[in-house]
Amino acid sequence: MTAPQLDVIGVGNAIVDVLAKADDAFLASHDIPRGGMILIDEDRARDIYAGMAAAVEISGGSAANSIACIASLGGKGGFIGKVADDELGEIFRHDLRALGVEFNTAPLKDGPETGRCLINVTPDAQRSMSTFLGAAGYVSPDDVDETQINRAQITFFEGYLFEQPIAREAFISACAIAKANGKSAALTLSDVGVVERQAAVLTDFISGHVDILLANDDEAAALFGSDDLNIIAEKARQLCPLTAVTRSEKGSLLIPREGDVVEIEAINPDALEDTTGAGDGYAAGLLFGLARGFSLPQAGAIGSLAASEIISHFGARPAQSLKALAEKSDLL
Amino acid sequence: MTAPQLDVIGVGNAIVDVLAKADDAFLASHDIPRGGMILIDEDRARDIYAGMAAAVEISGGSAANSIACIASLGGKGGFIGKVADDELGEIFRHDLRALGVEFNTAPLKDGPETGRCLINVTPDAQRSMSTFLGAAGYVSPDDVDETQINRAQITFFEGYLFEQPIAREAFISACAIAKANGKSAALTLSDVGVVERQAAVLTDFISGHVDILLANDDEAAALFGSDDLNIIAEKARQLCPLTAVTRSEKGSLLIPREGDVVEIEAINPDALEDTTGAGDGYAAGLLFGLARGFSLPQAGAIGSLAASEIISHFGARPAQSLKALAEKSDLL
Repeated sequence: MTAPQLDVIGVGNAIVDVLAKADDAFLASHDIPRGGMILIDEDRARDIYAGMAAAVEISGGSAANSIACIASLGGKGGFIGKVADDELGEIFRHDLRALGVEFNTAPLKDGPETGRCLINVTPDAQRSMSTFLGAAGYVSPDDVDETQINRAQITFFEGYLFEQPIAREAFISACAIAKANGKSAALTLSDVGVVERQAAVLTDFISGHVDILLANDDEAAALFGSDDLNIIAEKARQLCPLTAVTRSEKGSLLIPREGDVVEIEAINPDALEDTTGAGDGYAAGLLFGLARGFSLPQAGAIGSLAASEIISHFGARPAQSLKALAEKSDLL
Repeated sequence: MTAPQLDVIGVGNAIVDVLAKADDAFLASHDIPRGGMILIDEDRARDIYAGMAAAVEISGGSAANSIACIASLGGKGGFIGKVADDELGEIFRHDLRALGVEFNTAPLKDGPETGRCLINVTPDAQRSMSTFLGAAGYVSPDDVDETQINRAQITFFEGYLFEQPIAREAFISACAIAKANGKSAALTLSDVGVVERQAAVLTDFISGHVDILLANDDEAAALFGSDDLNIIAEKARQLCPLTAVTRSEKGSLLIPREGDVVEIEAINPDALEDTTGAGDGYAAGLLFGLARGFSLPQAGAIGSLAASEIISHFGARPAQSLKALAEKSDLL
């Protein structure tokens, strides 16, 4: 029996989200940047966790969230990422496999525990993330399965891992395999801090490897050195065949190298509960649509729909079938 | 500094809930009784978990959920229960302490992992529970801190642990301490299966030790051998100073040994999402009210309010401040 084709395979952080409500004073007292993501070590993770409210644990990780959404859209996804051989690692593996996602990366032995992202959600639904990468940072080229990458239309990498040298090698290795077989490589910039620290290296990397670039407006401004959307579009066209810039409630722009910019409207949920995973959901809809050969407006609209479902509840994984939602909106 | 007085100290299962949506076919194919609770071993836990949908992890345990609700009502609670020295154990401990609950029971060494309750929620919001007790079943008289029990108005035991011999000894030990100091002992019957298997032993135990008995209508029928509420009330008065019988959307009855039965109305939430923890929330409101010396109608109404909040969302721990809700309803 031939293994199935994959719409998208993600390479990213295999981490479990620990979500709790918090107020701004808590963020300030623990030096957690509002709305951002910081990497923390185990000691600081213990310290922040000890002060957090009672929490909920849900499997997370940016690219993994996107792959979960692609599965929920009816797509077929794969994931490459590193958990430890522990309880949280088992939870992470279960939750992806339960959605039908291929996830076969061997767990890390004799290293740190499975990573976790401590997410404090303030009353305005904004999430502020403190990530202890743990085992997740150890994903390496050895974990890249060539035959699996070859079965995927798109290989998708999250920028959060870009500062982990072995993980970056894993993505370069996966990209090389994908490109050699005429497949596409996608990258989400993930975090403005990563972009600020790595702008030059990232630009080189994107120019050499990436077909589809995803960024929010802050990340795009940091990468291209301007928040003028016309300048961003011009520079994006030089850098990458397709760039998506997300702009929260203002929607998103799809910037193809050839052709006009496509404006995609945001879909605002009835109630905004928790913005964790909004970008991951958008990426999922867009990449799923592109993998299936949909038009840019249709692929972008599925992205908006997925993001809208994700921010309507606590946690970054879909709480209902995105396929059913998309069908109801005549997007599938 | 003198340690604070406690409204209620719970003795119960220290377990983490693993909640996922399921259909009736899944329950049937895994021999999971609809709406009930079964104890399963580690192998069966692996088998059921492998088939479950992507899940959410939230600290659980019946008495622990009640204590969490009491803390959310503004009360002071303590908990005695056994986790392992592992990631889920750390999560369980964190979530109680984050609410201000005293929880000092030493973790189990060299035994099974922290227990978990696999909860499959069907589209009608009914929960069906498959519990791997793990370390939770090892709570013992050695874990009962006499000075801590002495500080509590009410010592509260969950019936789920009644079939674990060492755990039952722990409760008998705690009861003896409480009674010797003029404090009250409460028991929730937890599960109709436990009552059916243990009716005679339970009756003796209640008659000798318990001041406040909580049961749903099925459990009360199993214990008293009749589903006629008048017969139940008559027998309950003979057995126990105060009995509460919960009847889902029909509300509850408070049956004092002396005086009339008090009927308490249910509070129906706008949307019923997941009945996990409804009884735990009711018990919390009632026991909190009794610990504070409120009237039976007021204590019962707080129970209805807490249950209503719990079933309005996924998971058995409160998602918002029960104190604020109770104040808004002029119940506090």
